[in-house]
Amino acid sequence: MEGIMKRILLRAAYDGSGYCGWQLQKGVPTIEGELNRALTELLGKEIVVIGASRTDAGVHALGNVAVFDTESPISAEKFAPALNQRLPEDIRIQDSKEVPADFHPRRTNSRKLYEYRILNRNYPLPTKRLYSCFYRGNLDVDKMGEAAEYLIGTHDFTSFCSVNTVVEDKVRTITGIDVYREDEEILIRVEGTGFLYNMVRIIAGTLMEVGRGRLSPERIQDILAKKDRQAAGPTAPACGLTLVRIYYEELGFVSENVGIYDK
Amino acid sequence: MEGIMKRILLRAAYDGSGYCGWQLQKGVPTIEGELNRALTELLGKEIVVIGASRTDAGVHALGNVAVFDTESPISAEKFAPALNQRLPEDIRIQDSKEVPADFHPRRTNSRKLYEYRILNRNYPLPTKRLYSCFYRGNLDVDKMGEAAEYLIGTHDFTSFCSVNTVVEDKVRTITGIDVYREDEEILIRVEGTGFLYNMVRIIAGTLMEVGRGRLSPERIQDILAKKDRQAAGPTAPACGLTLVRIYYEELGFVSENVGIYDK
Repeated sequence: MEGIMKRILLRAAYDGSGYCGWQLQKGVPTIEGELNRALTELLGKEIVVIGASRTDAGVHALGNVAVFDTESPISAEKFAPALNQRLPEDIRIQDSKEVPADFHPRRTNSRKLYEYRILNRNYPLPTKRLYSCFYRGNLDVDKMGEAAEYLIGTHDFTSFCSVNTVVEDKVRTITGIDVYREDEEILIRVEGTGFLYNMVRIIAGTLMEVGRGRLSPERIQDILAKKDRQAAGPTAPACGLTLVRIYYEELGFVSENVGIYDK
Repeated sequence: MEGIMKRILLRAAYDGSGYCGWQLQKGVPTIEGELNRALTELLGKEIVVIGASRTDAGVHALGNVAVFDTESPISAEKFAPALNQRLPEDIRIQDSKEVPADFHPRRTNSRKLYEYRILNRNYPLPTKRLYSCFYRGNLDVDKMGEAAEYLIGTHDFTSFCSVNTVVEDKVRTITGIDVYREDEEILIRVEGTGFLYNMVRIIAGTLMEVGRGRLSPERIQDILAKKDRQAAGPTAPACGLTLVRIYYEELGFVSENVGIYDK
């Protein structure tokens, strides 16, 4: 039974440890590949999703977003449980809902919140190894927070972008950064309207250099001004990074890591 | 160069997901097997550790304890980093220190702290799947806490012990239980001087029955009195359980999930 075409939004949480990132690639496991496969199985015709954030290999998500179109009579909210039965346990759809037919998860204004976790203690902790970056030495969290302030706002983030990128315009807006300690972890939470390739991981790697005392917080201004990837710190490991949520303010909803997002 | 025989204590953290438990078994990966192998490699002679808690397959630890004897001139505190270089990344020694030659980790009075985590939300979260037990429905944490109170003290815990056990005396002492919510997780922390096989997992499974409203808190008294495994709730899954630490009060030290334990 076919009906009117509708666009369904999925909010996906995943453990990126076992995947070569979001984006479909032949012959290797990807999040998009698993979603396409599960949807194609469920609907009996080939489905290709459009994702909001093409997270890298090893990066995790609590609330990435994807959409697809279907004429299926299955009600929108039933897709989450139906897909979860067909997905591996390291991917779980948190919500499914109908959105306007012209809603595009990358072309619609949004704010994304990323979290970078540093496990800062004497020895690595096996139960945290997949979800944080281990660092043994002393890190000055206050100085890291000071440095982060310079990144807030609209800047040319060329210095904080992988050289392996084809995007021309490197101007992006960071709306907020928090750096704080939570027991043995240091969290860097970065919210912005758009991110370049590896941007959050280079921000994390650079703030760690500040925390170690190798860079003074004010140096962030020079690094931004240089528009040169070499000026910033190293790219921090993928496993420490999680896409927490995506806000689509125009549509009045938020993709969150909680059970509800219409608020 | 050989010297005087000394006994070294190791404090081990591990992710139990990939192991068939602590205890050595031929042909399958175990924590004890990995420790014996790494020590034997390091010292060039066969070493067999004595463990404090023989955790089950899939159970994690932040601070399990093992000892071994050696005449090696390597100083006690150097064993932690040296072993970590030879261990897989899901096992990490947190500390190594010399203890009296007659110290036995199971025969010395101790208090162990176990933690059981229940992820209580609408859908499973992939990044927590290996370290918690997922439960979707409503759980009354206050009632679970009330029920837990009846378990504190010295009781015959036959009802909370796997029938696959050879121990005759099933009297054990629980010194404290806390049940509380932390964001989307419910934590059950149980401290006691000794535990029977599967005891914490059966306590967790039974408290979940209380939380669901299938058992009233007072029923715990009847369950204890029956001395029958059938009277208690199911055995909760291994992945939710973590051995947090072991206190050896007589020796004046604590095996903790922090960098220091002499306090």
